[in-house]
Amino acid sequence: MQFELQKTAENSRARAGVITTDHGAIETPIFMPVGTAGSVKGIHTRDIKDDINAQIILGNTYHLYLRPGIDIIEKAGGLHKFNRWDRPILTDSGGFQVFSLGDIRKLSDEGARFQSHIDGSYHLFTPENVMDIQRTIGADIIMAFDECTPGDADYEYAKRSLELTQRWLERCFKQFNSTEPKYGYSQTLFPIVQGNTFTDLRKAAVANVKTFDADGYAIGGLSVGETEQEMYEMTEVCTADLPENKPRYLMGVGTPVNILEGIHRGIDMFDCVMPTRNGRNGMLFTSEGIINIRNKKWANDHAPIDENGTSFVDQYSKAYLRHLIISNEMLGAQIASQHNLAFYLWLVKTARQKIQSGDFVGWKNEMVIKLKERL
Amino acid sequence: MQFELQKTAENSRARAGVITTDHGAIETPIFMPVGTAGSVKGIHTRDIKDDINAQIILGNTYHLYLRPGIDIIEKAGGLHKFNRWDRPILTDSGGFQVFSLGDIRKLSDEGARFQSHIDGSYHLFTPENVMDIQRTIGADIIMAFDECTPGDADYEYAKRSLELTQRWLERCFKQFNSTEPKYGYSQTLFPIVQGNTFTDLRKAAVANVKTFDADGYAIGGLSVGETEQEMYEMTEVCTADLPENKPRYLMGVGTPVNILEGIHRGIDMFDCVMPTRNGRNGMLFTSEGIINIRNKKWANDHAPIDENGTSFVDQYSKAYLRHLIISNEMLGAQIASQHNLAFYLWLVKTARQKIQSGDFVGWKNEMVIKLKERL
Ligand SMILES: [Zn+2]
Ligand SMILES: [Zn+2]
Repeated sequence: MQFELQKTAENSRARAGVITTDHGAIETPIFMPVGTAGSVKGIHTRDIKDDINAQIILGNTYHLYLRPGIDIIEKAGGLHKFNRWDRPILTDSGGFQVFSLGDIRKLSDEGARFQSHIDGSYHLFTPENVMDIQRTIGADIIMAFDECTPGDADYEYAKRSLELTQRWLERCFKQFNSTEPKYGYSQTLFPIVQGNTFTDLRKAAVANVKTFDADGYAIGGLSVGETEQEMYEMTEVCTADLPENKPRYLMGVGTPVNILEGIHRGIDMFDCVMPTRNGRNGMLFTSEGIINIRNKKWANDHAPIDENGTSFVDQYSKAYLRHLIISNEMLGAQIASQHNLAFYLWLVKTARQKIQSGDFVGWKNEMVIKLKERL
Repeated sequence: MQFELQKTAENSRARAGVITTDHGAIETPIFMPVGTAGSVKGIHTRDIKDDINAQIILGNTYHLYLRPGIDIIEKAGGLHKFNRWDRPILTDSGGFQVFSLGDIRKLSDEGARFQSHIDGSYHLFTPENVMDIQRTIGADIIMAFDECTPGDADYEYAKRSLELTQRWLERCFKQFNSTEPKYGYSQTLFPIVQGNTFTDLRKAAVANVKTFDADGYAIGGLSVGETEQEMYEMTEVCTADLPENKPRYLMGVGTPVNILEGIHRGIDMFDCVMPTRNGRNGMLFTSEGIINIRNKKWANDHAPIDENGTSFVDQYSKAYLRHLIISNEMLGAQIASQHNLAFYLWLVKTARQKIQSGDFVGWKNEMVIKLKERL
């Protein structure tokens, strides 16, 4: 994997770059649609590619490991073959999902023991087997196995947890470096910076991950209960010290505003379930603000969902989409999810253009106001 | 609306024809995907048109009347504008849905009083207002308001019910003929032949509907609990007496085999929720037989869903589709529904070609065996 930094904005850490993988290029800043169980919910692979024009999607180690299981993905020839997506894939390591399981998981130095949320069966994730699993899934970008602490963790817990994450990272790289890709294209491993909302822990974490000279670096453990201000501050603390010549990935973030503020603070990659999850509930993100399509005010609005939208679904009317969502028609969830993802991709693409043309900050400040409007 | 009968098969009543409406031509025999609440469940309008290549879809008077409500559809400029489908639409009259409500509906000569399944509110359908509602929905083909009897109704009930349907039909035509289309294109009214499984009632019903010299005739009250053999017999009884130069529509039927047997007996138009409903449950219809994709045997079958399939969704693998259906991923329901509808449209299109090339019966007999196979 290569990263070319093409331009840095004025009065901002915002950057435009290109990541090159064996499955093609990714123009940054980029948003990555989430395909938890191997499918971006409600959207055909063809449309993710040609309509939304996503350049990379996520898969989820925890979910894919439990179902369909790694042997089936291996027999398919990897996830790209399984879900017919021929552009890059990033897999998260399962650390965050295991963390979300609460009572039914137990961490030790060895790894994380957990029970399947599907059938209650017992499993063990270790730094080593999580590397092997992601090798087998066939991700272009593999994430380190880490512990994610809740947003309100205290300093002592956050510090101990970071130490565990760091010991695990050592083992992740050892395993990764002693194994080979399975399907003939390269794979790379991104470490994850933890440290909760504590500046000194974040700085120590960044110093630690840099020693591995990775192809890219992720910032984890944000957007998990802390305030937005804390999230922005910690992002700044991290990007200040991360190498300029490597992409930075802010995990699990966020709203359109969060994404613009993240770009402003030097982030290159984002993922979030919000566009699809909120879409299914009838919340639409547009360049003019937020639409709650369930609101009665749209019942007789027969204009397109989004006049400025880039997706073919934007030509359905607001009244029709409202009817579908209210009636629990599957097509409603499909339309809203596809619209939102197309909007997220438009947003990062436009941010990139503004960075390149030298007027990112002014545009960002205007957009942040508009994006918060309730239409 | 016009109908041109182009060819009748040898040793069969199977016919090839063309229906012409103001929204375009329909080549018969045809299958009409069901868009109950104004959307064919799980499939974008664009794909119904360009991928499945449906020539006409159904809307449902009962459902659309309750939600979104007729005023909203009228403000949209009719259902074609509302759901962005610019080919023909047929609406069923609501008679069948009201019949399905059981205890919460009450019939009288005036019409049918019923409670909404959504909010329990009270409503009255009469032959007159059901004509007005379908005028407003903007259907190209409007169905008469009738009573549909259960498959096991006794002769006395079936006879009394048919008499009610016939009195209502008189009123339907009176109302239809004294009102105008609302959106500048023509609409036509199809009567429905009832009479349950009783030959003399069916014959009397056909004689009665013919007196209205309609543009087409429907056969209702089949596939509602009677045996398959009874359904075929009653179909034959009806098509024997219906005019040759008008299309015949067998309502709510059925399996791929039912459709071929219906075509063989002189039916030109079909509709059924089976391809989408069964698809959502993981049942796939193919030219080689039926696939239950939940079956473990497909878990590692990485070949396309249907090598002979005409839809882009047929290129997903069986193993992937099985994973999606087992995991309750929305995309699984979308893929299976779209495959099944594309298969139904392929089936009637191929039947048409066989009728025209003179080898329908041999092909039909072979297909009926294959279509019943469990793969
Ligand atoms: Zn998120
Ligand atoms: Zn049916």
